[in-house]
Amino acid sequence: LDLHLEPGGRGVRAGLEAAVREAVRSGRLSAGVRLPSSRALAADLGIARNTVAEAYGQLVAEGWLLATQGSGTRVGNRAGLAQQPATGAPPLQPRYDLRPGSPDVAAFPRAGWLAAARRSLSLAPATALGYGDPRGRPELREALAGYLARTRGVRASPDRIVVCAGFSHGFSLLCQVLSARGATTLAVEGYSQPQYRKIAVTQRLTTTAVPVDAGGADIGRIGAADAVLLTPAHQFPLGMALAPARRSKLLDWAADHDATVIEDDYDGEFRYDRQPIGALQPRSPERIVYAGTTSKSLAPGLRLAWLVLPAHFVDDIIAAKALSDGVTSTLEKLTLAEFINSGQYDRQIRRQRQAYRRRRDQLLTALHGGVSLIRITGIAAGLHALLQLPATVTEEEVIARASRSDLALDGLNTYRHTEEPHHSALVIGYATPPGHAYPTAIEKLTEALWDR
Amino acid sequence: LDLHLEPGGRGVRAGLEAAVREAVRSGRLSAGVRLPSSRALAADLGIARNTVAEAYGQLVAEGWLLATQGSGTRVGNRAGLAQQPATGAPPLQPRYDLRPGSPDVAAFPRAGWLAAARRSLSLAPATALGYGDPRGRPELREALAGYLARTRGVRASPDRIVVCAGFSHGFSLLCQVLSARGATTLAVEGYSQPQYRKIAVTQRLTTTAVPVDAGGADIGRIGAADAVLLTPAHQFPLGMALAPARRSKLLDWAADHDATVIEDDYDGEFRYDRQPIGALQPRSPERIVYAGTTSKSLAPGLRLAWLVLPAHFVDDIIAAKALSDGVTSTLEKLTLAEFINSGQYDRQIRRQRQAYRRRRDQLLTALHGGVSLIRITGIAAGLHALLQLPATVTEEEVIARASRSDLALDGLNTYRHTEEPHHSALVIGYATPPGHAYPTAIEKLTEALWDR
Repeated sequence: LDLHLEPGGRGVRAGLEAAVREAVRSGRLSAGVRLPSSRALAADLGIARNTVAEAYGQLVAEGWLLATQGSGTRVGNRAGLAQQPATGAPPLQPRYDLRPGSPDVAAFPRAGWLAAARRSLSLAPATALGYGDPRGRPELREALAGYLARTRGVRASPDRIVVCAGFSHGFSLLCQVLSARGATTLAVEGYSQPQYRKIAVTQRLTTTAVPVDAGGADIGRIGAADAVLLTPAHQFPLGMALAPARRSKLLDWAADHDATVIEDDYDGEFRYDRQPIGALQPRSPERIVYAGTTSKSLAPGLRLAWLVLPAHFVDDIIAAKALSDGVTSTLEKLTLAEFINSGQYDRQIRRQRQAYRRRRDQLLTALHGGVSLIRITGIAAGLHALLQLPATVTEEEVIARASRSDLALDGLNTYRHTEEPHHSALVIGYATPPGHAYPTAIEKLTEALWDR
Repeated sequence: LDLHLEPGGRGVRAGLEAAVREAVRSGRLSAGVRLPSSRALAADLGIARNTVAEAYGQLVAEGWLLATQGSGTRVGNRAGLAQQPATGAPPLQPRYDLRPGSPDVAAFPRAGWLAAARRSLSLAPATALGYGDPRGRPELREALAGYLARTRGVRASPDRIVVCAGFSHGFSLLCQVLSARGATTLAVEGYSQPQYRKIAVTQRLTTTAVPVDAGGADIGRIGAADAVLLTPAHQFPLGMALAPARRSKLLDWAADHDATVIEDDYDGEFRYDRQPIGALQPRSPERIVYAGTTSKSLAPGLRLAWLVLPAHFVDDIIAAKALSDGVTSTLEKLTLAEFINSGQYDRQIRRQRQAYRRRRDQLLTALHGGVSLIRITGIAAGLHALLQLPATVTEEEVIARASRSDLALDGLNTYRHTEEPHHSALVIGYATPPGHAYPTAIEKLTEALWDR
């Protein structure tokens, strides 16, 4: 089989992927045809076997190829792909992606994680593999209690921690419990994740919008609500921290309304220009549900997050969780406990903090080299920045231009939950691309901004 | 620190565990005291380090000890344990357990699983670690489609498979979707898992009971319902297969009522006296949701199960899942795909099928040696058997007697969802204890039955 691959100049792996896609699209490779092994193809092309394996992996993930042990890698059925349901199924990945929400998954510490998995599984009692406490393995809750106290100032005892399969999962359980207790209204920030508003609505809660200004959520305008979902350390997507005076005001508001505060501390570990802002939770552990996750610090695919609960929530959340996924994957939890206890988690966060800070600086340099009409905010922390566009251009125009050069961007409008006047802006996730693709992604962004 | 451990004659590890528990209970070891390292204690006692590590692990799991990397293993706070919320939190494990629902978790193939994790993670594209298709990784859905067709006759295409975090999780999503589409009634077998009835009720469905007799669920008496949840290959907990005539009748019923059939194939791989009974699903793939799991074949702690869906359910389940745990742990899914594709999954099932068959035969031998008033049924398949008790004794009496010798048993009453006359019976899970504890568990069972 001669593949006629002409990788071109885009990086060996990307070129190989593009060549296979093109060969399938044009019909030169038809469904079911078997590809050479990664070893054989690597030898033919004179490139690293890993590069071929990674390209195959990506193409399998996208549905162009099928990997079946024993019968090797074959060309997938594009007709079959076309029949896939549209809703929820992710579209084929754009080549460059500066949308927010994901860390650099290529930086996931695979070797360290596997080593922690090996150590923790060899030490785990057999009973760990059975059904268990819906809060999750005690090893991990112990490790998290120590970690959160040390790095975020959270007051957490292991029996009040519930490990769940991502923040959405934990938040969905919380909404379910709030709703079952008679809550009807959840206040959310005027700009926030639409996904969370959907979850609240699914659990029969009405969402109201809290206006956000330079000091973060305007606590004085929350009004009546049974609970509020906030991102105090780093507002998502606008990027500021909740002003100190508002932190105090929030506690008063919660007491006055006998309300619950949900503190979504999704990227609290990543702060560049000064010390991390501590969590709000220790100021009122019986009012505030603190939520953290590995989705930004390690990888979203792990599906590990945690709630630190006021005592009165623990039983109800356990009961709700028992009827959902039960205990959440035990092996991942044991591995994370070992990963934290051995100090590797801290090291990974320090490493990534430096890497993301460099990326942020690259972004600033690239954009300040151009028209200064673009204001960049929310850059002191986290994995994303806000690019405020001049009045001469709309979000939609820039996004469409970028899309034509295979760069995915997200506009602020995506996160809007308010009728107030809206300025055009882009929410740039500068952690998303793998390192090698980042400079090109930035270049494409500047092109799209300045319509070159 | 001198521990004064007197392991006694119950097996080294069990003796060590008992000695530590006793020392904590009596106050000889008080909260916070640091225990010697497993290496040091093993040397002191002249036993294997692994034995000590396992005993420590078990005691940590039970809350007697706390393991904190860096500061070693310490005595836990029993007062703290007492304050733990009661609901949902598992009670301290009984020493012997013949309750149904769990495989022998000590037989989990740790080394093989870790090897599969290493191989699959080193080959996975980085994008696998990001957010992804809520159905789960394509590698696993491909592997499952092949496996289910081969071993259970299921007609599954990868795009119709949704991987979820245990059967309960998938079932909960199904109930949510059924309910959102206007369904009001779910029929369940008159004896069935109470957990599933709770899930249905949480999702605003009413459950009705289908009487079960020697031929399985009495399809003619389902009546009006929007969906029915059945265990056709091996009724849980009674143990018979659904009679062939009823399999056909079920399809007619579903067509007449435009209803959905949920086929819970929880232990279909384990059949001892003849060929497995194939799945119902291929007879009507657009009516039947097929559900399988690794909770019996490998370990419940993995939290991996799958739904094979009629086309019209796919989009709605994807949307519901996106608001629950999103994608379910990616690394576990990649590992399972590799485990299936490399043939290890089949080998593990064959190995365990032999082991469980031997256990079942030991159970029969032990019980037939005694009073023959006890009838044992449901033994052709699965991991549990039904012991029908003579009229002279109640379930509750036998369970209470067993509990006094630290053996946990489950009565049929636990699973009852019907007002019809009820015979006393025990549901014996003969896969639950680790191999070394099984003979003693059986001995304690016969003692409890015959009140010796």
